[in-house]
Amino acid sequence: MEPAGAHGGEMAEQKKPAKTKHRKNRLEAFSDGVFAIAITLLVLEIAIPVEKGEGERLLSGLLHEWPVYLAYFISFMTIGAVWMEHSSLVDAIDHIDGVFMRLNLVLLLFCAFLPFPTRIMSEFAGDVAGERVAVVFYGLVLLMMTLMLLVMGRHAESEGLFGDDLEDERKEKARVKYQLLPGLIAYIVGGALGLLSPKLGIVIYLLIAIYLAIPIRDVTRLYRKRA
Amino acid sequence: MEPAGAHGGEMAEQKKPAKTKHRKNRLEAFSDGVFAIAITLLVLEIAIPVEKGEGERLLSGLLHEWPVYLAYFISFMTIGAVWMEHSSLVDAIDHIDGVFMRLNLVLLLFCAFLPFPTRIMSEFAGDVAGERVAVVFYGLVLLMMTLMLLVMGRHAESEGLFGDDLEDERKEKARVKYQLLPGLIAYIVGGALGLLSPKLGIVIYLLIAIYLAIPIRDVTRLYRKRA
Amino acid sequence: MEPAGAHGGEMAEQKKPAKTKHRKNRLEAFSDGVFAIAITLLVLEIAIPVEKGEGERLLSGLLHEWPVYLAYFISFMTIGAVWMEHSSLVDAIDHIDGVFMRLNLVLLLFCAFLPFPTRIMSEFAGDVAGERVAVVFYGLVLLMMTLMLLVMGRHAESEGLFGDDLEDERKEKARVKYQLLPGLIAYIVGGALGLLSPKLGIVIYLLIAIYLAIPIRDVTRLYRKRA
Amino acid sequence: MEPAGAHGGEMAEQKKPAKTKHRKNRLEAFSDGVFAIAITLLVLEIAIPVEKGEGERLLSGLLHEWPVYLAYFISFMTIGAVWMEHSSLVDAIDHIDGVFMRLNLVLLLFCAFLPFPTRIMSEFAGDVAGERVAVVFYGLVLLMMTLMLLVMGRHAESEGLFGDDLEDERKEKARVKYQLLPGLIAYIVGGALGLLSPKLGIVIYLLIAIYLAIPIRDVTRLYRKRA
Repeated sequence: MEPAGAHGGEMAEQKKPAKTKHRKNRLEAFSDGVFAIAITLLVLEIAIPVEKGEGERLLSGLLHEWPVYLAYFISFMTIGAVWMEHSSLVDAIDHIDGVFMRLNLVLLLFCAFLPFPTRIMSEFAGDVAGERVAVVFYGLVLLMMTLMLLVMGRHAESEGLFGDDLEDERKEKARVKYQLLPGLIAYIVGGALGLLSPKLGIVIYLLIAIYLAIPIRDVTRLYRKRA
Repeated sequence: MEPAGAHGGEMAEQKKPAKTKHRKNRLEAFSDGVFAIAITLLVLEIAIPVEKGEGERLLSGLLHEWPVYLAYFISFMTIGAVWMEHSSLVDAIDHIDGVFMRLNLVLLLFCAFLPFPTRIMSEFAGDVAGERVAVVFYGLVLLMMTLMLLVMGRHAESEGLFGDDLEDERKEKARVKYQLLPGLIAYIVGGALGLLSPKLGIVIYLLIAIYLAIPIRDVTRLYRKRA
Repeated sequence: MEPAGAHGGEMAEQKKPAKTKHRKNRLEAFSDGVFAIAITLLVLEIAIPVEKGEGERLLSGLLHEWPVYLAYFISFMTIGAVWMEHSSLVDAIDHIDGVFMRLNLVLLLFCAFLPFPTRIMSEFAGDVAGERVAVVFYGLVLLMMTLMLLVMGRHAESEGLFGDDLEDERKEKARVKYQLLPGLIAYIVGGALGLLSPKLGIVIYLLIAIYLAIPIRDVTRLYRKRA
Repeated sequence: MEPAGAHGGEMAEQKKPAKTKHRKNRLEAFSDGVFAIAITLLVLEIAIPVEKGEGERLLSGLLHEWPVYLAYFISFMTIGAVWMEHSSLVDAIDHIDGVFMRLNLVLLLFCAFLPFPTRIMSEFAGDVAGERVAVVFYGLVLLMMTLMLLVMGRHAESEGLFGDDLEDERKEKARVKYQLLPGLIAYIVGGALGLLSPKLGIVIYLLIAIYLAIPIRDVTRLYRKRA
């Protein structure tokens, strides 16, 4: 996947780094597959709101289903944001080790599991008792995804997986500080508030997904350029 | 994914471009995954028309189900055409930025969502009131996919993502002018006519899918060669 | 996907061939995705034969379901064989054109559709009238897949997509002659006999899948080596 | 997928090795796809434990469903471990032949099939008679996956697919001796004990999945470093 030939300076490198680079490529390919499938399977959880033959109620049925679309949207944007964070992290590191591969597998475990709490959340929208459980359960899975990203970054740092590129490590630290850590705290707050008011919890999850997905630096740059 | 070594002149390029090229490769891998899954999930929406044990009615049941196959075919060809347009666009641009990645995510959102309106459209075929809603809803999603392709191309142009390759930018402009813009207008017309006659709307969507999928230049070339 | 750097001689090639090679790579990535998903979705069509709580009948229920496993196996091996033929063909050609991309899309259309006739075939096993329709319908889709592989090879040949490599073109012709054409004829015969005896048709499809999947040259080589 | 340009020494290699390397890359891409999809489809087998409108029973329903999550977890970790073993094996070998491709297809067949026995196992948890059948059936599929990995390694060795790299072959032998063979034996023991006590069989499968997924060398290294 990686355009290795483009790294002019790596032409002379030893066989071993090439091998670990290869493993990094397969880790990316496998992870991209799981992210892409999990994000696309979400649509299977959406049920048609009215029975066959009740066509005249289809429009109101579809409009009435907005919590389902909202859950779909939050899950889609969260997996998308996690994919982008994952992409940045793996891009930044120089090589991977066996522990990193397993931590990655645990991240994918929660990611592939997300369609299930999504389905529960859209199924129990409006049912106060059920909604409370659904929102906390859903938030826990979102929390675990962010947590695994943090753990993977920590491990990469402590094991020197970033190689000699200090710039990469610095960027990763900035991402942790300005995106992942605030996200993590917001999930805990969102889940706790979700116990009191499920609706509020959902709104918080939505805001986190949008926040994680915003490319702050690019937006600032575009804004400055046009100002 | 990209055979970087084959770009002889890029051997000497700096580290930063190689990094963004890498991100472009993962964007392609992830998008290819979502397109491939969405296009393959469509088949899960097709139900067997008769019950177990009613085998003698299977043939007539299958033949009677033609709107389902038609919806499958339109969705398949539309996602296929969008994949080809996406492939051409990403191929043409030199590097991507964070905004492009997010616009791409929104395109994938509508693409991954398409199996749902497809299922509704085949479920309510023949039910006039339902068909009207289904055809407009379906057309809206198709419209959004084309629109996102246009927005992505516009952004690439205004941010200079095409790099120095004027040929690439020219081709992209031609594609916008001769394929995407007419497609966009046709979706609006098709949706509006679908309000009056759902059947007509479906025929228009079918024609757009076929039109978007035709490789005009290649067909002309083949035709000339044989003439 | 292609280790382009390994083609020493291509270092100096012009920009345009690199671009078409890139498109070939994305065509492979997208097709691999569709093949992999279609082959994996087949398992969703298998239903658990007995109800919850009837555990003592589970073993006999599973054993009784053998036509379902057989249909799964035939579909799996056929998609697998088509993937291998596709892999050989695309590997052999030098570059692709727009028509080849569309023909490929039609091949994928039938491939992604296969889980549906597979489900019908396992649903109506034992129901004579239904089985007849199911076997012919299933055979038609298998036939179309082989036909599209032939058409793609024909197009590649007539448009000079194999480049200058005569060896590649010769191998492709051998494959057409010894694998695809016999397979095509066997599908027609199998479908026709399936009208008389569905069971016979299924056996023929099974034999074709196994035949297409046998790597004749490698087996001969292994045999000679050990003899 | 492989960063071929990074292998400095391969620049001068002949055309034929490049071709087989290309086939190895597509085998990896296709296999990664199937592994990623099978591992992600598992979530579709999890049903929501309570009906709509019974929200107050949702929490106890979810907690009561632990065998379902356990089956999900075992299947996820087993496919993940098989993916990692597959990744190491294919990484180690130098080129592939036609027989290796077909053996790989059979491995994927069992891997793609796994969601079905997983669903059966979680469906019949608690039903003693059904559980017994489910645990043995599930164990058989896990056993076949490990067996195919062994057969693929054996074939690679006897056909000289490892090339001249003795280090690669030595590592593969160590993996067979310390991971795959013990795993194989443990599956047979687990299945046999599962006939007596299904619960015990499940625990053994869980332990094997965890054992296969542990990167023994890396863990030892980390441990030494911190000691």
